[in-house]
Amino acid sequence: MEDLRDDRDSWTSENCSVARAMDIVGSRSTVLIMREALLGTRRFDDFVRRVGVGEPAMAARLKEMVAAELLERIPYREPGQRTRHEYQLTRKGRELLPVITALRNWGDTWTAADTGPSIVATHHDCGEPIRAVLRCAAGHEIADGDIDIIAGPGLVRRD
Amino acid sequence: MEDLRDDRDSWTSENCSVARAMDIVGSRSTVLIMREALLGTRRFDDFVRRVGVGEPAMAARLKEMVAAELLERIPYREPGQRTRHEYQLTRKGRELLPVITALRNWGDTWTAADTGPSIVATHHDCGEPIRAVLRCAAGHEIADGDIDIIAGPGLVRRD
Repeated sequence: MEDLRDDRDSWTSENCSVARAMDIVGSRSTVLIMREALLGTRRFDDFVRRVGVGEPAMAARLKEMVAAELLERIPYREPGQRTRHEYQLTRKGRELLPVITALRNWGDTWTAADTGPSIVATHHDCGEPIRAVLRCAAGHEIADGDIDIIAGPGLVRRD
Repeated sequence: MEDLRDDRDSWTSENCSVARAMDIVGSRSTVLIMREALLGTRRFDDFVRRVGVGEPAMAARLKEMVAAELLERIPYREPGQRTRHEYQLTRKGRELLPVITALRNWGDTWTAADTGPSIVATHHDCGEPIRAVLRCAAGHEIADGDIDIIAGPGLVRRD
């Protein structure tokens, strides 16, 4: 089986899904808004307070995230108030949970030595902590050296 | 069991490992350099060509990544040449593999509809594709609603 790492200069970085994902979720404030949305935050004022970003910057960022279909803008109205909007995670947004979890796990290990983690995600049924780990579709646990890198349909080879 | 999402304003965003991780790996070029390093790239000229970042920007970024202990700068010398340096992943750097994999998976699903993925990571032993998935320490597969969020040692509560 050809492993693409053996001849890295025979293929280009075109159609790289890591780069495309970073184009959408590559900014610190986008990731922190996703963190809060995954914790249940939906309202503008709550995002501002909990993420620690000013109102104009938050408004601009949320607009981008709605355009990128990470969040959906939903009208709501409390009695006696005008109609306002809240931000609900789309499926595309919710599926960033493994990315945010992997980042949090790494941050817990490598950046939180002085304080320990602020929050811990645990399995509701058994109480054990949750991590983002590598598994293959057959269910095998994957260690560092167990990986082959093969061509997908979007691979662009050099002549 | 208290779930921290039930009263989000009773605790602050201090000591957030997601924010701390983003402070280190939050830029697009850092993530793309990590992608290449995880694919085996070690030399300056190869990083420049494969990531598509200019030499001065690459030199500055690699210096930051060495200071952040994601990469280690190692001298090497080819016959008849002067001593040069290459960049080797540290354990801290290698442990970003689940983050990069989760980003790539998400990008494959949500940004690669037109082309399909350029590369596929497969399990060497069985050939099945590899994903970053959520598991608890007892080995259970975690779905969206199975998660509790509880206090860690670094949690800062509001008075």
